[in-house]
Amino acid sequence: MEIFEVSILGCGSAKPTLRHLPTSQIVNIRGKYYMIDCGEGAQTQMQKMRLPMARIGHIFISHNHGDHVFGLPGLISTMALLGRTAELHIHGPRQLQEFLDNIIRIYCEGITYRIIFHPIDTRVHNIIYKDRSVTVWSIPLRHRVPCSGFLFRETPPLPHIRREMIEAFSIPFSQINNIKAGASWTTGDGTVIPHERLVTPADKARSYAYCSDTAYLPELTGLLRNVTLLYHEATYPEELAGRAQETQHSTASQAASIARESQAGKLCIGHFSARVSNEEALLAEATAIFPQTTLANEGLTLKL
Amino acid sequence: MEIFEVSILGCGSAKPTLRHLPTSQIVNIRGKYYMIDCGEGAQTQMQKMRLPMARIGHIFISHNHGDHVFGLPGLISTMALLGRTAELHIHGPRQLQEFLDNIIRIYCEGITYRIIFHPIDTRVHNIIYKDRSVTVWSIPLRHRVPCSGFLFRETPPLPHIRREMIEAFSIPFSQINNIKAGASWTTGDGTVIPHERLVTPADKARSYAYCSDTAYLPELTGLLRNVTLLYHEATYPEELAGRAQETQHSTASQAASIARESQAGKLCIGHFSARVSNEEALLAEATAIFPQTTLANEGLTLKL
Repeated sequence: MEIFEVSILGCGSAKPTLRHLPTSQIVNIRGKYYMIDCGEGAQTQMQKMRLPMARIGHIFISHNHGDHVFGLPGLISTMALLGRTAELHIHGPRQLQEFLDNIIRIYCEGITYRIIFHPIDTRVHNIIYKDRSVTVWSIPLRHRVPCSGFLFRETPPLPHIRREMIEAFSIPFSQINNIKAGASWTTGDGTVIPHERLVTPADKARSYAYCSDTAYLPELTGLLRNVTLLYHEATYPEELAGRAQETQHSTASQAASIARESQAGKLCIGHFSARVSNEEALLAEATAIFPQTTLANEGLTLKL
Repeated sequence: MEIFEVSILGCGSAKPTLRHLPTSQIVNIRGKYYMIDCGEGAQTQMQKMRLPMARIGHIFISHNHGDHVFGLPGLISTMALLGRTAELHIHGPRQLQEFLDNIIRIYCEGITYRIIFHPIDTRVHNIIYKDRSVTVWSIPLRHRVPCSGFLFRETPPLPHIRREMIEAFSIPFSQINNIKAGASWTTGDGTVIPHERLVTPADKARSYAYCSDTAYLPELTGLLRNVTLLYHEATYPEELAGRAQETQHSTASQAASIARESQAGKLCIGHFSARVSNEEALLAEATAIFPQTTLANEGLTLKL
């Protein structure tokens, strides 16, 4: 299977701790990097994890809070210092634009590459980006400011060629892609070999959903149905459910309920509050509802 | 002697490396913290070094380049999250104001404390701040943008009371401060005990100079005469002197020459280029000219 993995650069929340960095992730799909959120220190964490910045073409920002964006000025500057020429696309709520414009105007004189901002309508579930490998959908979340999650849907892989059939019918190399795409093959004597005999079924298309920051939103489960991996914020334990509601965050139990009701393959929880010193308790709370749960941590890479 | 020490939070230059963080320092004078520059990650480094943010009253920014200011948004936000109410004073070239204003307007809604910006005239050597313990002077530096160093001059300490004289003449506790400040003491029978007999001489007033970023400026030595500790940038080794001149930085030899000609007590060199992997060579280069040199490093605290 081709690469589809998520690397956690930071999974803390706004108040800094020595346990975690603020939020940032890299989604690697077939060797292309997509960054989600960019808290302070994200660029250093990329260096530590040996994730080259040049591979990032698109950055998706969930919402305009400092712990999700204060790594952007440094990242943008470093890309310029490294001589980047490729366009950098930043997707986020329109509230982000003013900060970006200021940074570019004040600190990016003579910058060697273009930065293109794409505002996201945080109220709807829409396609916000698409390339050969992936389609990215916005997920309307509920937080104190406009906020969007992201659903990365891998482009359905093509079926696998059966090598022995290629040899048996002497099919030329040039025809392989046509056959993968659905074509049959006609032999020299006019016999049609149907497509289905020439291939084995494709791998299932995988998907990754990022839901942070958000209050508990049971209505998300429709959008998240059968997602391969769900990252859902779990800022607080259930005993602080009142605090979670007040600040429009979720508890570990709520994150796990979303995963269970969505029939997700796996759940990763993060965005841990500085008040939470016992993360194992959060994990226990979540696994009681949804066993396939892991705790996010800086340096963790999850393969889908 | 009362506390006067400098803690290095970061001593790298603009291009990030895993060896160093961008520039930031804490000057601790008698328990009050003064921050110099604030590169990305400064607040995390403060936590690692157990330096509480609440003690910072004044931040001095040398110049408006990202590697000296991109830690400010996070620091300002964290101070608000920690419930700060004390005013925060930020001193820097006027070019910094727009960035600060933007951060405050976009990210500090409902902030619990006031931020007051004090523009520095980077062309002159002036007093820019004064309190009971210290006077801070600007130092005109030469860089690609307006840039100021900082000279912290400790308020001359008072002489030490001679305990045995206090006892011998039964001088009441209430008079100690007067005597420290220069008063004599008249005994019950009218004998005047001169001030000089009651005290031993004061410790020498100490001073700290921060010179970064700057081209080699021999004319600095007049301002820096007899400084106790000089921090001077040494971005490059002498073999890259051309590159240093072009980018308006200094070499290790040049930093050491400034220390020698100023008759500084000690020199600390920093702002190391990402190109420099052998810092020991920089140190060797500097100590050949000025033996009392140390290399800056994250976590280092220098006592004056």
